[in-house]
Amino acid sequence: MTNPALYAAIDLGSNSFHMLVVHEVEGACRILAKVKRKVRLAAGLQPDGTLDLDAMGRGWDCLRLFAEQLQDVPAGHVRIVGTATLRLATNIDVFLSRAEQILGHPIRIISGEEEAATIYQGVAWTSSGTGKRLVIDIGGASTELVIGEGTAPLLLNSLDMGCVTWLRAHFADGRLSEHNFEQAIGAAQQQLAPVAAAYLKLGWRTCIGASGTVQAIQEIMTSQGESEQITLAKLRQLQRQSMACGRLDALQLPGLQPERVPVFASGLAILIALFDTLAIESMVLAGGALREGLVYGMLGTRQECDAQERTADSLIARYQLDREQGERVRNTALRTLSQLSRPETDAGAAPMLGWAAMLYELGLCIEYKRAPEHAAYIISHIDLPGFTGAQKKLLAALLLNQRDDFRLEPLQHQNAVDTEQAILLARLLRLAIILCLRRTRGTVPEFRLQQDGCQLTLILPTGWSRQHHLRASELLAEARRQTEQGWPLEIVERD
Amino acid sequence: MTNPALYAAIDLGSNSFHMLVVHEVEGACRILAKVKRKVRLAAGLQPDGTLDLDAMGRGWDCLRLFAEQLQDVPAGHVRIVGTATLRLATNIDVFLSRAEQILGHPIRIISGEEEAATIYQGVAWTSSGTGKRLVIDIGGASTELVIGEGTAPLLLNSLDMGCVTWLRAHFADGRLSEHNFEQAIGAAQQQLAPVAAAYLKLGWRTCIGASGTVQAIQEIMTSQGESEQITLAKLRQLQRQSMACGRLDALQLPGLQPERVPVFASGLAILIALFDTLAIESMVLAGGALREGLVYGMLGTRQECDAQERTADSLIARYQLDREQGERVRNTALRTLSQLSRPETDAGAAPMLGWAAMLYELGLCIEYKRAPEHAAYIISHIDLPGFTGAQKKLLAALLLNQRDDFRLEPLQHQNAVDTEQAILLARLLRLAIILCLRRTRGTVPEFRLQQDGCQLTLILPTGWSRQHHLRASELLAEARRQTEQGWPLEIVERD
Repeated sequence: MTNPALYAAIDLGSNSFHMLVVHEVEGACRILAKVKRKVRLAAGLQPDGTLDLDAMGRGWDCLRLFAEQLQDVPAGHVRIVGTATLRLATNIDVFLSRAEQILGHPIRIISGEEEAATIYQGVAWTSSGTGKRLVIDIGGASTELVIGEGTAPLLLNSLDMGCVTWLRAHFADGRLSEHNFEQAIGAAQQQLAPVAAAYLKLGWRTCIGASGTVQAIQEIMTSQGESEQITLAKLRQLQRQSMACGRLDALQLPGLQPERVPVFASGLAILIALFDTLAIESMVLAGGALREGLVYGMLGTRQECDAQERTADSLIARYQLDREQGERVRNTALRTLSQLSRPETDAGAAPMLGWAAMLYELGLCIEYKRAPEHAAYIISHIDLPGFTGAQKKLLAALLLNQRDDFRLEPLQHQNAVDTEQAILLARLLRLAIILCLRRTRGTVPEFRLQQDGCQLTLILPTGWSRQHHLRASELLAEARRQTEQGWPLEIVERD
Repeated sequence: MTNPALYAAIDLGSNSFHMLVVHEVEGACRILAKVKRKVRLAAGLQPDGTLDLDAMGRGWDCLRLFAEQLQDVPAGHVRIVGTATLRLATNIDVFLSRAEQILGHPIRIISGEEEAATIYQGVAWTSSGTGKRLVIDIGGASTELVIGEGTAPLLLNSLDMGCVTWLRAHFADGRLSEHNFEQAIGAAQQQLAPVAAAYLKLGWRTCIGASGTVQAIQEIMTSQGESEQITLAKLRQLQRQSMACGRLDALQLPGLQPERVPVFASGLAILIALFDTLAIESMVLAGGALREGLVYGMLGTRQECDAQERTADSLIARYQLDREQGERVRNTALRTLSQLSRPETDAGAAPMLGWAAMLYELGLCIEYKRAPEHAAYIISHIDLPGFTGAQKKLLAALLLNQRDDFRLEPLQHQNAVDTEQAILLARLLRLAIILCLRRTRGTVPEFRLQQDGCQLTLILPTGWSRQHHLRASELLAEARRQTEQGWPLEIVERD
């Protein structure tokens, strides 16, 4: 008997096999299980193009684990794909017939282009932003390069280079020498040469990297206290740090997981070649790629709207938030922002204020008293497809500061907008929440907000306070709180 | 226009006025707003029985705040009650006519018995356990005493003593002297004398205290690292600590909120008299009382089942948990517990293991990777009507330890069961989760569990592991983890 709520995607990669089991809840995936085994299939590719039996055996062993859980997933809810190494192996039938018998489901060996297109879907589902994006996924034996816009891939390529094959080809002696690095980088540049011009011509606005190599690099940078933007300068610095370790088996970098060590240098070399050849300025880590593309494809969730909007909608449904109240606070907050005399806010500030307003009551699902902390906790930890790590931090900081005493530290330690901006957004959110306190249509007063340096003046209709005691009392307390922080807020009445 | 999802309860108490606004979500109340003002109405009661205009004015000011929000709550969803001081005041009509005009809703002055009965309902809704319970609520001008069982009150009384009136009567000189304390305690004993025998005769199994006095005492004890059980010895110790401060305006105890200071000594004296006269062994703080009784009465949620069950049901609905899987894990976990050769577990252990199993996936609503931490976070902070603080801590510790490395500290620092018990429960929960990993009916193997000291042996049918690779691999990893902790676990096959 299968469970109709379950979906599974399995990716038989050249470095690892992965299984993702999810449960659809309100249009979002709730991950129930992730199983991963380092099979390092590509290491078994022989010079004659066959895959050796050792590698096959490691693969079959792993599939026996997956098979147990797969029995409970409806056949139509399972997607199993093989990628580069299985594309290359000439004796693939030997592997497949036994593998399909073990799994009880068909395995599709997908072409490099199909792999690239699916990766692009996975990235599109989990990323936000407008304009063209360049998506790069460095696998064990292939690297996918896609430029797309919205949900449509425009230019696709899959190149025969990957962190496992480059390890065997260029770091076989185990040395992290300049010579090995330059060989590996040069070989990758050669692979890129035939396609680079088309990418440079089409152009892109943002660059997103998927796969373990990019994740490992971001983890190292984060553990060194750096931003999440990967640049060529940082990659070159990591190359120097790696070379200083001398040998692959002595490679240690703060934040680098031991299991990633063997394929780190080869993946790094490929990434350096990509940055160099395509003149990439900076790259961020994708929230999902191949497996997510497979899963979202099965779920058939609506594709038309923006990833941030889809994510917020799902949160509102899953946490039973009052959407009407959220919209009321958002409209009020954005109205305050639009009235500022110096609206030279970052382009990204207004949407973030809007999302914080829509989601401000998130913490109530846990408990009233410390609800702002709970909201910040949830936002800090939850998967938020469409939001970058920096945006999550800003959202969490705003939610934490929605009422009561200010807690400056998180506003200062996000880097989505500058600190002054973040403080301003928090002040506006707090005002909007108080103004909307009645939770009912037609109860938000007409108001104007004036700005003079960091002084804000909220102008309400004459006599309003005498008729709205609770909000008047809350606004006065808020004015006192902001003024005490050194950000004067005055509440006046005038027609 | 009102919002049909809102409910409000207002309690015009002798010390404070409170407003509670809630939203019903899946049979549970989500608190949207709590507004409280220290009106100290009882301080305005004159010797001739009238309430002075100053006190009335403080009350009306507060009601103007409440009134603003009340406009949005449907008339049928509002309950406003006045208690002791308003019962006593001879010029109550003056206060009421203006107050009802401000609020736009009728105010009911309830009798002491009705107050006691409503308090009992609020406690019954938010507490668990079987057998008779004694509920005590020390207000500003009255103290309610109820013995009840399940949802039925059996013996009700409301006595004319409270922390505000006792302050005026016995601590008027501002001194925290032994003389004042003994006068206050003696006067309270006199109030109790006529009813004490009936309570002692009926008897009770657990004693629950509501109101600010009990809450303040529990906060002090917690901040001193003590358990949440209040005993006469601890109350006497607090009396000595208070006397050491000399004067009311110099009273400072770690954990005591400044706003509670004025009425602390008088409330403490009343509580000491209650413990002494009724020979109360220990008391825990209620999760709710008068306002909760009013709200739950309006919601008309089903009363027949146990508070813990109702709470768990609501969590399952609100967090979209897979109930069938939770029940599967619970049944399996309880089966393991029942097979132990030394089942001399605390009576409370089995239900807690059961709830942990039902709720183990709670953290998935936030994110998969650190789901056990998220589950523990939610349980630690959420209102859990029916569960004591100690039970919440145990549940959180079990949820945190549901997989991956053990985290002993929370298992050691709960005091619902002893540490050894808690570790055993965590070990069983982990086994049950692995055994139920397939999430499908009929997939949990027949097994036996043998115990020899802290050694556990899980006996599976011969050949089972060869057919269930994923679970076999997870069980082996789990056996290694427990054994490394010094709690040997062996997995064997035998028919």
